[in-house]
Amino acid sequence: MNPYWSPGIDKLSPYVPGEQPKLAQLVKLNTNENPYAPSPKVIEAIREEAGENLRRYPQADSAELRQVVADYYGLQPDQVFVGNGSDEVLAHTFFALFQQPKPLLFPDISYSFYPVYCGIYNIDYRTIPLRDDFSIGIEDYQLENGGIIFPNPNAPTGRLLALSSIEQLLKANRDSAVVVDEAYIDFGGQSAASLINRYPNLLVVQTLSKSRSLAGLRIGLAMGDVGLIEGLIRVKDSFNSYPMDRIGAKAAIASFKDEDYFQQIRQQIINSRDALTDALTKLGFQVLPSAANFVFATHPGHQAETISAKLREQGVIVRHFKQPRIKEFLRITIGTAEENQRLLEVLQQII
Amino acid sequence: MNPYWSPGIDKLSPYVPGEQPKLAQLVKLNTNENPYAPSPKVIEAIREEAGENLRRYPQADSAELRQVVADYYGLQPDQVFVGNGSDEVLAHTFFALFQQPKPLLFPDISYSFYPVYCGIYNIDYRTIPLRDDFSIGIEDYQLENGGIIFPNPNAPTGRLLALSSIEQLLKANRDSAVVVDEAYIDFGGQSAASLINRYPNLLVVQTLSKSRSLAGLRIGLAMGDVGLIEGLIRVKDSFNSYPMDRIGAKAAIASFKDEDYFQQIRQQIINSRDALTDALTKLGFQVLPSAANFVFATHPGHQAETISAKLREQGVIVRHFKQPRIKEFLRITIGTAEENQRLLEVLQQII
Repeated sequence: MNPYWSPGIDKLSPYVPGEQPKLAQLVKLNTNENPYAPSPKVIEAIREEAGENLRRYPQADSAELRQVVADYYGLQPDQVFVGNGSDEVLAHTFFALFQQPKPLLFPDISYSFYPVYCGIYNIDYRTIPLRDDFSIGIEDYQLENGGIIFPNPNAPTGRLLALSSIEQLLKANRDSAVVVDEAYIDFGGQSAASLINRYPNLLVVQTLSKSRSLAGLRIGLAMGDVGLIEGLIRVKDSFNSYPMDRIGAKAAIASFKDEDYFQQIRQQIINSRDALTDALTKLGFQVLPSAANFVFATHPGHQAETISAKLREQGVIVRHFKQPRIKEFLRITIGTAEENQRLLEVLQQII
Repeated sequence: MNPYWSPGIDKLSPYVPGEQPKLAQLVKLNTNENPYAPSPKVIEAIREEAGENLRRYPQADSAELRQVVADYYGLQPDQVFVGNGSDEVLAHTFFALFQQPKPLLFPDISYSFYPVYCGIYNIDYRTIPLRDDFSIGIEDYQLENGGIIFPNPNAPTGRLLALSSIEQLLKANRDSAVVVDEAYIDFGGQSAASLINRYPNLLVVQTLSKSRSLAGLRIGLAMGDVGLIEGLIRVKDSFNSYPMDRIGAKAAIASFKDEDYFQQIRQQIINSRDALTDALTKLGFQVLPSAANFVFATHPGHQAETISAKLREQGVIVRHFKQPRIKEFLRITIGTAEENQRLLEVLQQII
């Protein structure tokens, strides 16, 4: 341990993101990126903003972007928070809401960054096992808690929790914040944003990295009651006045304004997912019902780790987690039709 | 206080950034932005990156940018850290290095974000008064401490501390991290980066917001011993895997590669500063010697707050701080020749 580190820095267990291999020819289905380019209007907005204006600080409060998001979801701008990717938004959320005397609850199988945030902010947590079918059982959350968080659809399972179940959870936990992490919601779910005006304990987190093809720009957002958002703003303004750069803000605005393009690529990915699910099933895979831009699949006749390694030999990268309950599963991002085809061809040789 | 906030969120005192007024006709000399556009090569690099690639995550370790910064300063990439503006880099620095049993030391007059970081991370600190001439007296730092930080040149005074004094401070504090915040170093100082290979307790923080005209993109960096950088990386990877977006990284690389443009606008600003200092002195102002892209000036015959208000009436915005020791000073950013001229014209009417 370096002698100048603060106590505890040596004990952090940082998050390990999915690999970003350098070879361009690879079929990269490991980090749930969108197979399609961002909207041409987004590209145009970026090129317009690329000029003399960049010498100026952005809006510290990202007022323009927050207004556009608010309009899109039928909310007020002070019910919207934006940040440098949903990972930053989540980090501020854990800091602002989850440092509580009672433990935070989240599923045993979910986004592996949650325990990392708990580590850095000393948050006590308890994981709640998913049911045997990998769905979230809201009845399992009837415990004293200082907050609840889960992805919906869940990652890496892809399973969706119905809005009615989320509402039940909100009603049963009126004393704690319930955060729904909707990174993948646009691929088949209904956003809990519609519940915000009725539940002051609900925070909905989203990202433009997946359904809006902007992983490279780092834009995340949170929506919730003014009081929750104010807490996030207090933390943000004690950390970095200007987390959202000028180009990211303009790109995000252009994305929310090009609904046609958004609907088109979203639907293409949903169609590809359904086709890929069928094809995998025919190859003998068991595929969990997915509402995301990936599928979570296991094959009774082959070890997931072996399949993953063999795919890699053929230039196809998928994600494999070594956690006990899911070590026989592969998380496969939905690619373009050609990429999915290539995946299936290689799998046919392996299986 | 909102019932869902973590304890302490209500007690945060967030940083208040300089105003970003919307009127385009204003002469805006209040947030130390560069009066010149970014390099045309930076703009070109941004436009090139604005395309299909944005659907992909950036490099989590920003390897390409760190290599370019390392080459520029004669360091190794693992001696370089990058982040979403130097405010984020500073936040991680306070977290990774300054949460110590002994108090952090910084000048009583310096960047007003430092006490905010101490607030959010519960860091005990002690402010050391600047000398009467507003210079840093390194002999005043001979106290037990858990770290030292100061801007060099200092803000908002603009005064430079010589590299030899910094070296003395490093030698006298071998048990604690010494962070030199060089946001304004390119306007007249010599970077302490040259000392990094000899002092494992030195961290140098820089930004591309000022001398490289990229405030709108949010790019900051830190340079220091591998051990210090590793501490920052551990914190960053427990907070946000990808703080540096694709466009920011490419823009930063292009900026470091266009040395001619950088030297040209830097020199223009230095020349303008010297001319403005002369002109203000002729109007009866006392101007501190500045090595930054702003001057800090007081007028014996007029209250700073009054001058500031009258300038604003004429569409010229400068920054005034209400802190007792400096409440009779104005911090005036160096603008273009035309902007400085306009400032002087209005001042002539007021004084």
